[in-house]
Amino acid sequence: MTQTTNFRPIMSDAMLFEAIEAEKTSVGYYTLPFQDTARIKAYAATVTQKHIAIIGIGGSTLGTYAIYSFLRDATVLPKTLHFFESTDPLDIGARLKFIDLENTLFVVVSKSGTTVETLSIFKYLHSLVTIDKDNCVIITESDSSLNSYALSEGIRTFEIPKNVGGRFSVFSPVGLVPLAIVGVNIDALLEAAAEVHDSFFSRDEVYDNLMKKARFLVENKNEYNINVIFSYSTMLEGFNQWYVQLWGESLGKVDATGTKQGLTPVGLIGPVDQHSFLQLIVEGVRDKTVTFVVIDDFFSSAMIPEITLKGLESTDNVNAITFSKLIQMQAEATIEAIDALQDVPFDVITVAKVNEANIAKLMYSYELLTSLCAKLMGINAYNQPGVESGKIILKKKLKT
Amino acid sequence: MTQTTNFRPIMSDAMLFEAIEAEKTSVGYYTLPFQDTARIKAYAATVTQKHIAIIGIGGSTLGTYAIYSFLRDATVLPKTLHFFESTDPLDIGARLKFIDLENTLFVVVSKSGTTVETLSIFKYLHSLVTIDKDNCVIITESDSSLNSYALSEGIRTFEIPKNVGGRFSVFSPVGLVPLAIVGVNIDALLEAAAEVHDSFFSRDEVYDNLMKKARFLVENKNEYNINVIFSYSTMLEGFNQWYVQLWGESLGKVDATGTKQGLTPVGLIGPVDQHSFLQLIVEGVRDKTVTFVVIDDFFSSAMIPEITLKGLESTDNVNAITFSKLIQMQAEATIEAIDALQDVPFDVITVAKVNEANIAKLMYSYELLTSLCAKLMGINAYNQPGVESGKIILKKKLKT
Repeated sequence: MTQTTNFRPIMSDAMLFEAIEAEKTSVGYYTLPFQDTARIKAYAATVTQKHIAIIGIGGSTLGTYAIYSFLRDATVLPKTLHFFESTDPLDIGARLKFIDLENTLFVVVSKSGTTVETLSIFKYLHSLVTIDKDNCVIITESDSSLNSYALSEGIRTFEIPKNVGGRFSVFSPVGLVPLAIVGVNIDALLEAAAEVHDSFFSRDEVYDNLMKKARFLVENKNEYNINVIFSYSTMLEGFNQWYVQLWGESLGKVDATGTKQGLTPVGLIGPVDQHSFLQLIVEGVRDKTVTFVVIDDFFSSAMIPEITLKGLESTDNVNAITFSKLIQMQAEATIEAIDALQDVPFDVITVAKVNEANIAKLMYSYELLTSLCAKLMGINAYNQPGVESGKIILKKKLKT
Repeated sequence: MTQTTNFRPIMSDAMLFEAIEAEKTSVGYYTLPFQDTARIKAYAATVTQKHIAIIGIGGSTLGTYAIYSFLRDATVLPKTLHFFESTDPLDIGARLKFIDLENTLFVVVSKSGTTVETLSIFKYLHSLVTIDKDNCVIITESDSSLNSYALSEGIRTFEIPKNVGGRFSVFSPVGLVPLAIVGVNIDALLEAAAEVHDSFFSRDEVYDNLMKKARFLVENKNEYNINVIFSYSTMLEGFNQWYVQLWGESLGKVDATGTKQGLTPVGLIGPVDQHSFLQLIVEGVRDKTVTFVVIDDFFSSAMIPEITLKGLESTDNVNAITFSKLIQMQAEATIEAIDALQDVPFDVITVAKVNEANIAKLMYSYELLTSLCAKLMGINAYNQPGVESGKIILKKKLKT
């Protein structure tokens, strides 16, 4: 008996890569690392206000928050960012307590220019303090109504390119303008993202990793419909939130055959969630993949002192260890425990240092991974038709 | 043709209720609403420090944080809580910036008394400030090594009953002591929890709701393995985190037949996550149930002013609406959109006001629901054997 098998992946690596390359002409985020930042840096240098209030929601703020919250405790940033995202009245009130409105720059970010949360908060702040060209900058599409407003008021604007979607916009002015203002080295961000770009498109290391990972996640999506990121630092909480949006909103789609697709993102923080979600990973249904993100060097010398407390002698095993080392050991212990199970698919991303380059690499890689998964799933990563119906219902309610 | 069918649920409602009633003799959380709080209130009244630092992790802090963060912006609490949970050195450093160590009470919470994170942070704080009976209180089991330490130092202690697990301990001294200190009405919490208890055990409204919900979730667990809570207020972020632990760690278990069980909790905040996860719910795979938590009255009169901005006239439809009303309309619009899909199972919990009674009712109901689901799944809700292996590996690493 002879047999010639024709079984092969629906989409080969070569086809997938070709499809992504073709997308570069219409999808804007791929080339953002190569933009000229001179105008942004020049503007940022002129900002005199101490507090920077970002008014925006979803893709307009999550990326900025991810980078800002990663860097703020490890770096000395001269200014502070405050995020006005929710229409929750108590949240707005609580955030106002932390800023001096007279010494605040208002950064309004809305791609469409008509986001109800953003405009409502903007109007409200308007009733508390004069907002004009001296304390406001607007980031929006070139033909939005928010842009018309800015023009009529002489307010400085930065443009969000039409072909860059909100959740893929962190390396556009959406992220770069506020980050440059608070003192983040935005060129270091873009150089690192460019490195990942080049490694992928020259089919180097990043290509090998991401192609393999995307294929595994998509080929096993019916078995493992939940993708957990387990980040070992509270500084990565913003990154987790950004990942949840990127993954959930890009990959939850109806495909060309009418089938509902979707991979559910979950963001965990270690060691805190070792005392929470870990039990479910270890003994629960095998419906999850896990990606650990571990930081090598926290730039902190804080150490558990060499003291013995009466009755607590058994805890002396942590004496004279730095917290930096302890959290690493906790991550390693959890990874080894998961590895020992042998049936929970996992991988580990190690971040050498807390700096601009590493958070940019992490985020740009995840953008590429998202694009790859969407292509393999036969869906459009860049739209979000499913959220329109709620918006239409809200509009009707507002009219009555 | 005649047929007599014997098909019936594996466990009838009567059997389930009986099993829960039987559990009340060995599982401690059920009767916590009926404890005497006199000693806790008397102690709380003696605390003079302005800052209250809780040192604990997981079940030792999540419930306290859920109640504290729900109430703090709507109520005037005379003192502030600060949570030291993670061994992340940058997180510890950031939190220290907000407290005056000389004017701080340290509340150490650890059931076992040897939690590595809690003890490491406690020792570290010891090296920064003298900690003794004048600025410390310890909440632990009666025979833990932390209790021995407290005894030898004359530090005040409150006991965690042996039969109350960490994630079910919010209505024990674990939550009540720190909450009473910062000015929360703990009797109002317990009275409301008792109301839920009584309604359930007298087979009244709570019984009807929870039995139906538990049965749906468990009978459809293989189809809907993800249970989303979509809370419409940033004040419920702490509740979401507490829910994630309660649900994930209680229900992720191997059952009596050796089958891995588990339901995956996801916590979302509206309207922010309308711009993130909602797309996945609407167009993604039908593997999720959704529970909306909506607040009726935020006690806030903050309103979007009646101003028209040039170019932004289209946003005038939100003018003269309170944020309280707007966020409610956003929730309603999302709920209607989900309802229209007809194939996403959802329910709605309405919280009338932001106060002690309502957060307590919400949390106690979820504890009961968790117990019911575990019984139907044939698993033990109250242990967490799956996290032990990582702890053993860490202990080995610390020895070498």
